[in-house]
Amino acid sequence: MDKMVYNFSAGPAMLPVEVMQQAQAEFRDFNGLGVSVMELSHRGADYMAVAAQAEQDLRDLLQVPDNYKVLFLQGGGRGQFAAVALNLMGKNAKADYIVTGQWSQSAVAEAEKVGQVRVLDGFETTGNGPRALADRWDLDPTAAYVHYCPNETVEGIEYHFVPDTGEVPLIADMSSTILSRPIDVSKFGLIYAGAQKNIGPSGLAVVIVREDLLQQACPHTPAIMDYAAMAKADSMLNTPPTYAWYLAGLVFKWLKREGGLEAMGERNKAKAELLYNYVDASDFYSNNVHPQARSWMNIPFQLKDDALNDAFLKEAKAEGLLALKGHRIVGGMRASLYNAMPIEGVQALVAFMDRFAKQHG
Amino acid sequence: MDKMVYNFSAGPAMLPVEVMQQAQAEFRDFNGLGVSVMELSHRGADYMAVAAQAEQDLRDLLQVPDNYKVLFLQGGGRGQFAAVALNLMGKNAKADYIVTGQWSQSAVAEAEKVGQVRVLDGFETTGNGPRALADRWDLDPTAAYVHYCPNETVEGIEYHFVPDTGEVPLIADMSSTILSRPIDVSKFGLIYAGAQKNIGPSGLAVVIVREDLLQQACPHTPAIMDYAAMAKADSMLNTPPTYAWYLAGLVFKWLKREGGLEAMGERNKAKAELLYNYVDASDFYSNNVHPQARSWMNIPFQLKDDALNDAFLKEAKAEGLLALKGHRIVGGMRASLYNAMPIEGVQALVAFMDRFAKQHG
Repeated sequence: MDKMVYNFSAGPAMLPVEVMQQAQAEFRDFNGLGVSVMELSHRGADYMAVAAQAEQDLRDLLQVPDNYKVLFLQGGGRGQFAAVALNLMGKNAKADYIVTGQWSQSAVAEAEKVGQVRVLDGFETTGNGPRALADRWDLDPTAAYVHYCPNETVEGIEYHFVPDTGEVPLIADMSSTILSRPIDVSKFGLIYAGAQKNIGPSGLAVVIVREDLLQQACPHTPAIMDYAAMAKADSMLNTPPTYAWYLAGLVFKWLKREGGLEAMGERNKAKAELLYNYVDASDFYSNNVHPQARSWMNIPFQLKDDALNDAFLKEAKAEGLLALKGHRIVGGMRASLYNAMPIEGVQALVAFMDRFAKQHG
Repeated sequence: MDKMVYNFSAGPAMLPVEVMQQAQAEFRDFNGLGVSVMELSHRGADYMAVAAQAEQDLRDLLQVPDNYKVLFLQGGGRGQFAAVALNLMGKNAKADYIVTGQWSQSAVAEAEKVGQVRVLDGFETTGNGPRALADRWDLDPTAAYVHYCPNETVEGIEYHFVPDTGEVPLIADMSSTILSRPIDVSKFGLIYAGAQKNIGPSGLAVVIVREDLLQQACPHTPAIMDYAAMAKADSMLNTPPTYAWYLAGLVFKWLKREGGLEAMGERNKAKAELLYNYVDASDFYSNNVHPQARSWMNIPFQLKDDALNDAFLKEAKAEGLLALKGHRIVGGMRASLYNAMPIEGVQALVAFMDRFAKQHG
């Protein structure tokens, strides 16, 4: 490759360069075995060691308490929308869902197939921001759980606080939040995440679940979605997505070498501030999300004239700045700044945006 | 690597050497884009082309009729155990399941969560063989479908004929059969397969389904298991396992270059005969499956003394013959001879077996 490329895809997203170098080097000969990791039986000692190490490193990074199980599953975040409801709705089959955008709305649709869902409005781009909104929720103390999505990838909305749900277990879709900063796992009943943003390639989902929540699955829960059965089988009730799990393990090792989640949190905050500060100071670009609800991970921004969007994308691509097109629901642009995106990528983006604005402003 | 290694794993299994070489070469820079296939958005033109080409090549190989949809999903074969029942059991919620071994038995357990399952005995290692057994089934003409598993990976049992189920749709778990020889898709209502044997890495499942069967899913079917919704979204209702799908595409291209499924069928028959003929002629090794029900793909064999198993496995591994340990249910050894296993691998195995027998016989 002649020049550096920065990939701002919202997911599947870029992976750390060092991880990809290692994976390429050992692609066809893992640990001197003469075969690829993806050609190993998941029941053999060589692969079992890979899987166990990945789990341990994830536990270390997130300081997962001992009374939580960590599962490596298939089906992505959308699979967990169904699995969460099937596993946790319990006998009275009702739950509260805070809706902040596209992803939490999609979670509601899956939960409604299982039981009664009450929707609480969590999306406010004007007014006093999400904390003030949260104070007005009338949470049901008899609900099986409260579900929310701390970071909405499409709209670029993020909760920079953890809602207080009292004794009711809090469930979080952390697909685009996990590993981006320290998280107090003990505040949650269950955390889940599709891997293809901050963990690894697509095709893998991670679930972190408090053990006392594991004994109430609906009888018709498909085996691959049954958290208790999966926990008992160390996530190998069926053949897991072995290569994605291995790559996730390489990412966890990389995170440890880079200083862990404290360091990631500082970096991610700095990256986001660099871009937001530039956008806010500009007459050419804008971001309309409430300042208290702005995402560190996914930053949508609009050009002052939509007719310039195509030129922006074309010129950005020519400079090695890829996948900046916004989600069709929001339009405009979106820069996703997950852990693997270095500050240099954001600097290159801002420099390009500035040149483009001067040219077309 | 100093010497050739042959990997007899039942799955995840070895992949074609040429496929792995290509994947390694373009691992970090696909089509000159400067990023990995696994870092591409599944909604972008570059990845969409990869996905569409893989589907077309699979259609070409299997000569899939136009009134069948081809889906690329997650959840493996076990996920499809549930999905098949949820999608196809229909209004009277009953189906016939032919049980020939571990896998078809596991499919029953998932289907029983959805409706009424009638089990037909399909497992006979003595007597007149499976064809004679099939003549005695009293199939229910009002069942939503008949399910069977043409090749049981654990027991090494295979049906070398397609059961006649009249007007009732026939559903086949072809996880370890698909692509191993020509298949007349039009005889089936639905075919599914976990990828990790003859298709690609684990974490991907392929479903080939006749369109008229797509409008009867249970209302509580999870979205990621809803075949009609997935068909409508070209298997991208959620983020698919993009890298596994890409690798499957490379395998399909390799199969085309190698002469397609006719050529594979001839090769696989020759490979299996080489090993069965040796075992049958030997006093040291044995295989007890009925001659008419012997698998081309998975060949279990026993040593005349189980106390020699560990020595066999250790010496085999030292010679680069890997993953020969039999499934714990059957014991002994098992050699899986999927498409990617060259005849040279089977020759090397037989030569080793012969040396070992002379040494320890």
